[in-house]
Amino acid sequence: MISVSEALSHLFALAGPLESESVPLSKANGRVLGQDVFARRDQPPFSASAMDGYAVCAKDVVSGATLEVIGEAAAGHGFSGTVTTGQAVRIFTGAPVPVGADRVVIQEDVSRDSSTITLGDKIDAGFHIRPAGGDFSEGDRLSAPRVLTPSDIALMASMNIANVPVIRKPRVAIMSTGDELVMPGETPGPDQIISSNSFGLQALLRDLGAEARLLPIAKDTRSSLETAFSMADDADLVITIGGASVGDHDLVGDVAVDLGMSRSFYKIAMRPGKPLMAGRLENGAVMIGLPGNPVSAMVCGHIFMAPVIRQMLGLGPSAPQEETALLAAPLSANGPRQHYMRARVEAGRITAFERQDSSLLTILSQANALLIRPPHDPERVSGETVRYVPL
Amino acid sequence: MISVSEALSHLFALAGPLESESVPLSKANGRVLGQDVFARRDQPPFSASAMDGYAVCAKDVVSGATLEVIGEAAAGHGFSGTVTTGQAVRIFTGAPVPVGADRVVIQEDVSRDSSTITLGDKIDAGFHIRPAGGDFSEGDRLSAPRVLTPSDIALMASMNIANVPVIRKPRVAIMSTGDELVMPGETPGPDQIISSNSFGLQALLRDLGAEARLLPIAKDTRSSLETAFSMADDADLVITIGGASVGDHDLVGDVAVDLGMSRSFYKIAMRPGKPLMAGRLENGAVMIGLPGNPVSAMVCGHIFMAPVIRQMLGLGPSAPQEETALLAAPLSANGPRQHYMRARVEAGRITAFERQDSSLLTILSQANALLIRPPHDPERVSGETVRYVPL
Repeated sequence: MISVSEALSHLFALAGPLESESVPLSKANGRVLGQDVFARRDQPPFSASAMDGYAVCAKDVVSGATLEVIGEAAAGHGFSGTVTTGQAVRIFTGAPVPVGADRVVIQEDVSRDSSTITLGDKIDAGFHIRPAGGDFSEGDRLSAPRVLTPSDIALMASMNIANVPVIRKPRVAIMSTGDELVMPGETPGPDQIISSNSFGLQALLRDLGAEARLLPIAKDTRSSLETAFSMADDADLVITIGGASVGDHDLVGDVAVDLGMSRSFYKIAMRPGKPLMAGRLENGAVMIGLPGNPVSAMVCGHIFMAPVIRQMLGLGPSAPQEETALLAAPLSANGPRQHYMRARVEAGRITAFERQDSSLLTILSQANALLIRPPHDPERVSGETVRYVPL
Repeated sequence: MISVSEALSHLFALAGPLESESVPLSKANGRVLGQDVFARRDQPPFSASAMDGYAVCAKDVVSGATLEVIGEAAAGHGFSGTVTTGQAVRIFTGAPVPVGADRVVIQEDVSRDSSTITLGDKIDAGFHIRPAGGDFSEGDRLSAPRVLTPSDIALMASMNIANVPVIRKPRVAIMSTGDELVMPGETPGPDQIISSNSFGLQALLRDLGAEARLLPIAKDTRSSLETAFSMADDADLVITIGGASVGDHDLVGDVAVDLGMSRSFYKIAMRPGKPLMAGRLENGAVMIGLPGNPVSAMVCGHIFMAPVIRQMLGLGPSAPQEETALLAAPLSANGPRQHYMRARVEAGRITAFERQDSSLLTILSQANALLIRPPHDPERVSGETVRYVPL
């Protein structure tokens, strides 16, 4: 058995960043920027008015001064002439400031006759001009890698970047195995249960930014497993679920090795999830063999599969992000394996659930954290600080 | 001008929860559960072995005892006979425990001859049986509303819920307005800029779980605005951007009122975003008129549009979630409007950006927080606790 961090190191050695693809801007949110992108223009492209008012020569701004209005500059329609002393141009927010003008007096501070304005007693001190290039200049960079946010999308739009290079989504094939499994909506036989891990892992993978598809459930036979593996030959990552333990019907590892999988590791000093395996398939894809217990599979999905996907997306090799909270209830000493206890964090205090059996999906569904107990962690009392992985 | 919380109250009065629709389980992740769902079976549906080993009568478990192996129970294939004293059934994880057996001895604790097992010196104290219904029973409930997580998806799969009632996605139409705007990828004229808010807001809306589409950019004319509104008649929410201020070309409010919009409010005591407006259109849809400055539009999206979407999704009326952090640098006193300063939080410490002009998308893209300054908030020194909205 190896430690969780050793297992992660092995996994990071198996998985590399994928290549970029170009997507339209409207599909880029949440994707990982694959290459630096550069502004294709200055923003603003011209000195622009920040307010509705009058563009004037700053030296003319004196209370009581009367200026001649010689034209109008609206957003999208600048004034083509020049403003000289004694003159003003009616201007609106976003309009180019006319040549010669270097200050905008807001409309609340003037009184207007048909063709003149008179400046009031109190004039706002601001110049209300946004200088050309004040936000960014042509050639300015947005650096990769970066998970693109709505703000980034708005920024790239204003940079006139209509298509965005993003890391392509990892293609993941999910293979449930076991004679006891049927699909949701089917009528299970008396000894059967519904395949659930595959659906939970597919959802998790999509949240992580992967393309995830379910293969047909493989039976506990060599030929059924071989067929399922053959249907995954275009995947970057093959996730198997179940058949990974030491029982006579646990054939996944053997079949994978016979198909050319080079095993990287098998068995990890953790709870739940000990019988995890990983390796590289003949076609270069990464294989992660998850245990079949529902909670084990989902916990290993968060602890191992998620970092592999992030690595494939170019976000670098990093263990799941941990946070800290104060124990709301005491914990007994931990055994030799790292334990990821299903827990609930509220307002900085964390409580592990009473029932930690790895079959209990109701508990996992109520949990929002995996409380980390290192191997041989001693008894802990209320109020101690502990680490957890948010779910 | 009304306060931010008054504006939110008005918005919550305009928007109600939408109806449910049924989606396949594999599409339900991230959606809001619209009605309670109920387990269609017990889980496990039978007492199941938690380990690979031998199912026996508990009273026979004594070191050195020899038991006759009378059959096998595998996952999906139970043993149909009965176990009586002196007998054992080979059993694998997930298999039904045969009638008569009430304990599983793990395989590591026995030695096996062809047809008998002999119990070893040290026998694990566990019974290794998961009782029928130990996770959940038929009729057990998952309660709405609830944003469905991957764990919930796995749970509903095991409950044999193949289709899930979820609140339908709010349909949002986004209308940019302004003669100065062109779409990304186009070649702007000398006085023009690229429409960016619409793309940023679309991304934000999709993250929130809405269906968001962009209308063609409306020019600053009544007929162009009327055409754009007419293209939004199937929307639950119409978001306009720009044309909301006091300039002669700010026609959005007037046109909307002429089309039957009943105005709920106009102008909010906040920075950025003062010229926000909202109301109900003739067809019942909510309209939110956002200001045109890029940062104003995005900030109002987070502060007002996001809570409206959550309300439509049945998650109840609640202001954007706030967190607290320690000021890393002092702040000068705030004016009469609530200020949402673009800021960066790292390790519990928050720093507002130097430049807070509402046109700066580069700053917004670097920000991960909106630092909240209440109206007339006095000077603040480093180390004080302040509130922020995470971005």
